[in-house]
Amino acid sequence: MTEALRPGATVGILGGGQLGRMLAMAAARLGFHVHVFDPDRNAPAAEVARAATHAAYGDEDALRAFAGSVDVVTYEFENIPPAALDLIEAVVPIRPNRKALATSRDRLDEKTFLHELGLRTAPYAAVDEEGDLAQALAVIGTPAILKTRTLGYDGKGQARILSPEGAEAAFAQMGGRPAILEGFVAFEREVSVIAARGLDGSVAAYDPGENVHEGGILRTTTVPARLSPGLRSDAVLAAARILNALDYVGVMGVELFVTARGLLVNEIAPRVHNSGHWTEAGCLIDQFEQHIRAVVGLPLGDGARHADVVMENLIGPDMDRLPALLKDGSRVHLYGKAEVRDGRKMGHVTRIRRA
Amino acid sequence: MTEALRPGATVGILGGGQLGRMLAMAAARLGFHVHVFDPDRNAPAAEVARAATHAAYGDEDALRAFAGSVDVVTYEFENIPPAALDLIEAVVPIRPNRKALATSRDRLDEKTFLHELGLRTAPYAAVDEEGDLAQALAVIGTPAILKTRTLGYDGKGQARILSPEGAEAAFAQMGGRPAILEGFVAFEREVSVIAARGLDGSVAAYDPGENVHEGGILRTTTVPARLSPGLRSDAVLAAARILNALDYVGVMGVELFVTARGLLVNEIAPRVHNSGHWTEAGCLIDQFEQHIRAVVGLPLGDGARHADVVMENLIGPDMDRLPALLKDGSRVHLYGKAEVRDGRKMGHVTRIRRA
Repeated sequence: MTEALRPGATVGILGGGQLGRMLAMAAARLGFHVHVFDPDRNAPAAEVARAATHAAYGDEDALRAFAGSVDVVTYEFENIPPAALDLIEAVVPIRPNRKALATSRDRLDEKTFLHELGLRTAPYAAVDEEGDLAQALAVIGTPAILKTRTLGYDGKGQARILSPEGAEAAFAQMGGRPAILEGFVAFEREVSVIAARGLDGSVAAYDPGENVHEGGILRTTTVPARLSPGLRSDAVLAAARILNALDYVGVMGVELFVTARGLLVNEIAPRVHNSGHWTEAGCLIDQFEQHIRAVVGLPLGDGARHADVVMENLIGPDMDRLPALLKDGSRVHLYGKAEVRDGRKMGHVTRIRRA
Repeated sequence: MTEALRPGATVGILGGGQLGRMLAMAAARLGFHVHVFDPDRNAPAAEVARAATHAAYGDEDALRAFAGSVDVVTYEFENIPPAALDLIEAVVPIRPNRKALATSRDRLDEKTFLHELGLRTAPYAAVDEEGDLAQALAVIGTPAILKTRTLGYDGKGQARILSPEGAEAAFAQMGGRPAILEGFVAFEREVSVIAARGLDGSVAAYDPGENVHEGGILRTTTVPARLSPGLRSDAVLAAARILNALDYVGVMGVELFVTARGLLVNEIAPRVHNSGHWTEAGCLIDQFEQHIRAVVGLPLGDGARHADVVMENLIGPDMDRLPALLKDGSRVHLYGKAEVRDGRKMGHVTRIRRA
């Protein structure tokens, strides 16, 4: 497939969480059918999709049937078992591509890739065994953060090391999995660029947003970010360089640290990104539609920002604030999750200040 | 039910066309489940709803099961058989209410209602039999339009009478159904107000839009409409008076003619309205979410306009222009209809000029 899919074609989405759900609605608005694959029978995306397969990512028959029923496959998370991707890719294109997935799912590969591109990151070192950690700490110093190379998200699979004495406990927390030690970055703020690249190679980026995390989970994104014109341009160019190097198709989230010495790339996510949810309130074409446009081969849309926006995640008990939020002029977007749990993303709100 | 429904409750929607589809996605964004009732197995709304019943509006068992599975019922069209509504209303609230439906589904009742409210309309007279028509034409004159009292939409069930000689043919076109003769209005333009009223009685209106029809079908809506501040205020106040008089809950479309002597009300539609589609591109809270907020008992949202917008319907072969529209900065919204037919609304596009 090098031509655009036509309305009536079917987009397959691996993962049926809130990102898959918002992608599914964006695909519907463009006239595409959607087939969601998610093991969870209560996956939020399933109820706004035409079809859903609830099966394990190791279920080869289910994967094959899924791949055979769709015209392109995209995904909402990066930790999809490679064997599942092999099987799907034999039938139908996967966008964004495997290289983007492989690079971003392993923190060490990701950092190496970014360095090879000439982009700066926090200092880092591979930690495969306990001896590596002592050596890495000697170079990088403390405080530092030990992270599993794969499968971590929202602060999971991470351990802070405040002094060399903490090394043993942190290493134990990795549970024997290969890890990476990252030096602590004294950053002024974190920003992210939500950028898209089309099948035709064109690149478009949304205005950078400024992120605040709490407990490892994104709390708010504010646009515009407090960035000098020079740094704003650096941020967007860094994202564009990454997309081009990966021959990327789709939307990517690129998190950056703003430091006294310029920008460092924190991490990349080869998918729509929580820090881009503000686009649904601040832009004509939001990140979800932009992603669908890219993966089906349509031209990228107009992502210019028409308002200043603050996006706030509704996490767990934040849902108690719902009655007030529905009254105060916010736009409330809920994910249809039945059960409220601590740390669970239940929805988000956006507030705009007309620009 | 006088309290707001909580996320996880289910909204029932009678009618699964494009309006039902956009309502379904708005309900999902607020955390509600959706059950669509539509005889058509390919109803566009069904694929973005959690549940769909495909049965006739005369199928009492299906209607009862539908009503029993939802917490409130709303609708996307006004010609629902009253017997079906009786059956549903015995189980669950219908919003907007029966009075709004009864008034708007009969052009004669609607005009009478508007007059009793002190609002102006085109001159009109009831035409039950051929003799009535001659009498009505003597008073109203030509040109005039003969319309069936019920079941007309998008120019169907209407016949223009250019001179008294055309009366017989026009009457024959009504097929023996009760009709209404409406005098021709020399209007400068047509505008519409999309207004909402909440369960708490609060009223909010979007900025009036200016409509252009072709062949009886809406072609474009442009906001802001060309209206003096006085007429803009008159238009919004007329809509509010109508909503209050009907004890209305939900979004209504009120079409008005702008004439040299002020505003005339053309017709009212007790539902989200094609001429309000621009709100999805021009407002934080669009008409679909506003309607869902109202019918589930939530506070109305912020409908302030942040941009100038032109909405254009994509009708039948307009779909051939899709490749160009996807490239030119428009927002394209398609309804997922498989078959392109002349006169069929396939989607719409919105273009914004940042205000």
